[in-house]
Amino acid sequence: MLEKLKQEVLEANLELPKKGLVVYTWGNVSGIDRDKNLVVIKPSGVKYEDLTIDKLVVIDLDGNVVEGDYKPSSDTATHLELYKAFGEIGGVAHTHSEWATSYAQAGVNIPPLGTTHADYFYGDIPCTRAMRAEEIQKEYEKQTGKVIIETFDGHNPMEVPAVLVKEHGPFTWGTDAHNAVYNSVVLEEVAKMAVKTFTIKNDIFAHKMSQDLLDKHYLRKHGVNAYYGQ
Amino acid sequence: MLEKLKQEVLEANLELPKKGLVVYTWGNVSGIDRDKNLVVIKPSGVKYEDLTIDKLVVIDLDGNVVEGDYKPSSDTATHLELYKAFGEIGGVAHTHSEWATSYAQAGVNIPPLGTTHADYFYGDIPCTRAMRAEEIQKEYEKQTGKVIIETFDGHNPMEVPAVLVKEHGPFTWGTDAHNAVYNSVVLEEVAKMAVKTFTIKNDIFAHKMSQDLLDKHYLRKHGVNAYYGQ
Amino acid sequence: MLEKLKQEVLEANLELPKKGLVVYTWGNVSGIDRDKNLVVIKPSGVKYEDLTIDKLVVIDLDGNVVEGDYKPSSDTATHLELYKAFGEIGGVAHTHSEWATSYAQAGVNIPPLGTTHADYFYGDIPCTRAMRAEEIQKEYEKQTGKVIIETFDGHNPMEVPAVLVKEHGPFTWGTDAHNAVYNSVVLEEVAKMAVKTFTIKNDIFAHKMSQDLLDKHYLRKHGVNAYYGQ
Amino acid sequence: MLEKLKQEVLEANLELPKKGLVVYTWGNVSGIDRDKNLVVIKPSGVKYEDLTIDKLVVIDLDGNVVEGDYKPSSDTATHLELYKAFGEIGGVAHTHSEWATSYAQAGVNIPPLGTTHADYFYGDIPCTRAMRAEEIQKEYEKQTGKVIIETFDGHNPMEVPAVLVKEHGPFTWGTDAHNAVYNSVVLEEVAKMAVKTFTIKNDIFAHKMSQDLLDKHYLRKHGVNAYYGQ
Repeated sequence: MLEKLKQEVLEANLELPKKGLVVYTWGNVSGIDRDKNLVVIKPSGVKYEDLTIDKLVVIDLDGNVVEGDYKPSSDTATHLELYKAFGEIGGVAHTHSEWATSYAQAGVNIPPLGTTHADYFYGDIPCTRAMRAEEIQKEYEKQTGKVIIETFDGHNPMEVPAVLVKEHGPFTWGTDAHNAVYNSVVLEEVAKMAVKTFTIKNDIFAHKMSQDLLDKHYLRKHGVNAYYGQ
Repeated sequence: MLEKLKQEVLEANLELPKKGLVVYTWGNVSGIDRDKNLVVIKPSGVKYEDLTIDKLVVIDLDGNVVEGDYKPSSDTATHLELYKAFGEIGGVAHTHSEWATSYAQAGVNIPPLGTTHADYFYGDIPCTRAMRAEEIQKEYEKQTGKVIIETFDGHNPMEVPAVLVKEHGPFTWGTDAHNAVYNSVVLEEVAKMAVKTFTIKNDIFAHKMSQDLLDKHYLRKHGVNAYYGQ
Repeated sequence: MLEKLKQEVLEANLELPKKGLVVYTWGNVSGIDRDKNLVVIKPSGVKYEDLTIDKLVVIDLDGNVVEGDYKPSSDTATHLELYKAFGEIGGVAHTHSEWATSYAQAGVNIPPLGTTHADYFYGDIPCTRAMRAEEIQKEYEKQTGKVIIETFDGHNPMEVPAVLVKEHGPFTWGTDAHNAVYNSVVLEEVAKMAVKTFTIKNDIFAHKMSQDLLDKHYLRKHGVNAYYGQ
Repeated sequence: MLEKLKQEVLEANLELPKKGLVVYTWGNVSGIDRDKNLVVIKPSGVKYEDLTIDKLVVIDLDGNVVEGDYKPSSDTATHLELYKAFGEIGGVAHTHSEWATSYAQAGVNIPPLGTTHADYFYGDIPCTRAMRAEEIQKEYEKQTGKVIIETFDGHNPMEVPAVLVKEHGPFTWGTDAHNAVYNSVVLEEVAKMAVKTFTIKNDIFAHKMSQDLLDKHYLRKHGVNAYYGQ
């Protein structure tokens, strides 16, 4: 079942090591079939070099395994919360990529500093609040999803398709699994350039980009008046 | 038409990912035929792995497509302004390379700190002023070109073949498309070493290089008394 | 003799350059057969590209060569001290990997800043005290082992399978030679992200991770209630 | 003539891009035949991918071309000064490698911070004083050599086989051309780790390594009591 989606999720997962975003098994990507409400996700702890299509796991939105011989990713409950809350997303990716994770560890938002950011993220890439002891101790991965959703309260997750989970690392999403990974790559670049920017000139007020330029670049690539690409 | 120029522009574009200067489609290179006043440029949003000679776009200096099935790069108008104002240049390159872009985001010039810089850039690599709201909102890419030209007022663009567009990223140029990309590579190295230099010793006054050494190295490689190379 | 262990130690040694953890000959890995109390270790100063199974050296816990034509690693005595003091370890790795070594040179512990750390190291990765003149001058490599053991006094070396030897570099260990190298890779990632985290926000108090989250992630992967992986 | 030396100098030159120490043509290596007092050196401005044995240039110690169709490296006069002043060296290498060059641009010595440094360099890796206007304007490359020699006044160049030329970059030397390049690689690693060490803890007094440990590691690898390697 879901062969096309599985192929997509497999390729998207394999894209992570290829792009240098994961070490060992530190990442996972899923995709959703919105008609059937089924999610395809990487199995837990399986090496990328051993990952094949038949090892992927199909689950429903309650986390029940519908098909597959493997246990799904330990982060599955986080993915499911995001799919349930963010109705437009088709894929979710999680990595411990070095620059975005360092931002998550520092516990601060990534502000928009230039057009590379503005082309994909329409404002700050937020960092969640720290999770509370009770959230960590009970249904931790599900609560991780809930804290992400809380962070986006009043914001459009399609306009900023990434979040930093404090003291943990990034989650990104997108129209499908490939797009979720694409956004992981962009997030990593943006995080890296933000660190370097502040290393050059450590003054947040001096070079937060202008709102006009943020609008221009985001809307040059997104929405009805977009004119980038073919 | 312009088969030789197209081949050159194709190769120069493909050099960008090979040198690690671009992620996804974040860059574009063009070259000009000064006799015909025609420019060959990368199509917008096409992946480098899919880029072939027949996808390149030929335009005139007013931006009219003369040949090609694709839309030219969204940055085309910037390239054209540079060709019109800087009569000696034969190629233009634009990237979001990480170090130069970080400098552009920080909004400061790259000062000459050593002979690597002096061998190619005869003084500061300037950062433009921020663009004004009206420049951003109307003919943005053309205005980007105009702000670059304003930045070089009174300076020779062949002596410093690179600029940092504030909150955006670098543009470089050169005698042809290859040389423009060459200068992008050099700029990235120079920007990277400048950041590291200030990390080691954060005192601009202590190690800005001597004018004598800047003269020596620039003129060792350029002009009538150059003696570097065969 | 010990063919299986030798194969494992060979592969584990070759993993070091593959993972980018060593330059030239700057690293060594060993494994122990606990039944026979014999250790297999890399020969001293042999290039990784020249390393073959027959060049490995078999020694007893007193450092006597039992088999092999080569001199064992100059760090052998350090490995042996660790095997004698830490009864559960099956392999030891030593590198001069750039980030962990820089931490060792700075002479400070790596604090747990996020879940990447917590997944593998249950608390600070400690840096030893400086070695004393007499320790350096007499039986230096053996004393290096003793200083590591002193550093773990009252701590479980299996819960934090890594140490930074001050002004020198990291040693890691694990259930076997492969696992020791795995922990070297993780240590390097964790060290790298710690440096970047402090570069983003240089405030140790602001983002040392919560003990609850440290517990959760470490115990999600280790011990009787672990649920990560298949 | 000098076929063996040429082969060695060719290989040593090609090692530079392989080790990531040079961009484009920014480096050169030479080797000397002490019996004949002839030096083999890279031609000026020739790309590494185009470098073949017949393009190497043979010169005498006065810089006269004895064999070869190409102009020797523009840095030739610096190499010759070093060969004349440092009687034990058999090879010289020059690069603009990013970390060592950044140190040269910052204009400060690299202090010994750990055993990686101590294994190869018996003390600070010195940075020269700035060159004077008259030294820059007349016989610049020869004067560069003289300033290096001045920097080593009272020091043994074989114990610290590297120097940082202020506002320029590193020169290294060794027993032969290969060893000179080896020392360039080590210097780059040591410079990189020094920057990272100070990023972690910016206090030169806190972690300059002990003289005892510096002695131990240097003498473990060099001199009559060395015991590292086979």
